[in-house]
Amino acid sequence: MLKNTLRVSKIKNGTVIDHINAGYALEVLKILGIKSKVKSIVSVTLNVSSKTMGLKDMVKIEGRELKTEEVNKIALLAPQATINIIRKYKVVDKQLVRLPKIIKEIIKCINPACISNSNEPIKATFYVDFQNALLLKCHYCGYLLEKEDIVKQFQ
Amino acid sequence: MLKNTLRVSKIKNGTVIDHINAGYALEVLKILGIKSKVKSIVSVTLNVSSKTMGLKDMVKIEGRELKTEEVNKIALLAPQATINIIRKYKVVDKQLVRLPKIIKEIIKCINPACISNSNEPIKATFYVDFQNALLLKCHYCGYLLEKEDIVKQFQ
Repeated sequence: MLKNTLRVSKIKNGTVIDHINAGYALEVLKILGIKSKVKSIVSVTLNVSSKTMGLKDMVKIEGRELKTEEVNKIALLAPQATINIIRKYKVVDKQLVRLPKIIKEIIKCINPACISNSNEPIKATFYVDFQNALLLKCHYCGYLLEKEDIVKQFQ
Repeated sequence: MLKNTLRVSKIKNGTVIDHINAGYALEVLKILGIKSKVKSIVSVTLNVSSKTMGLKDMVKIEGRELKTEEVNKIALLAPQATINIIRKYKVVDKQLVRLPKIIKEIIKCINPACISNSNEPIKATFYVDFQNALLLKCHYCGYLLEKEDIVKQFQ
């Protein structure tokens, strides 16, 4: 196998999202709203070997520094991810993703009777509850979504 | 901007799909049936600069040599793509993608009344017709699909 250094080349300026759980990089792109027709150079690598995780995925976005609130959403799917902000080839900021307390818009409530699934001008909103496992509680109907319900929405 | 050689690192064995029209790499993955949870190491790069195309996308699949019939399907979206088979870091086969004469299963007929959209055990089948632009003609109902109808199915 090639060394990581060969596959994961350096970028000059931008954001590197590292330590994404293997198999989730394409979903991470969806959470970040990155579709095929983006302006930035985007590199995605699936199944890179990792000392701590066995296998991991990576996403690199050149010329764009993602904001903390943009990035924290990916903690829903990739709680171990690390965010590296790169300037002039150097890591100037490195942080773990943190689940926000409230998630808006990117997830839909799975209760069909929930008012957020009607035609009302309402944005789906959840409170994040992390005890033994991730749970999202709907602001409107109180329905609880488990991780599986969240992952399905990005597949 | 970094040189291509930095971003697009060499792989030891596998397949490199190069010269994908910029903005189509993620759709190419879908056509190839490559989802997040694959076993191979897969790298995708969007918006790499290209002498001949301005911008292009690339997909690299390590440890897997794609067969011609697998790859030719991507000509539907990326007619300029080139396929490089790599062994021991060397390109041992390089070919342009060619549209197959018949496309089965990967595209659905957009005529709701077509028998291929019923519950009959029938596989959607199209004849490829390329005159001024790409057209797919449904084997069952004769409906003509344009490129736009095809692209939509992968978004």
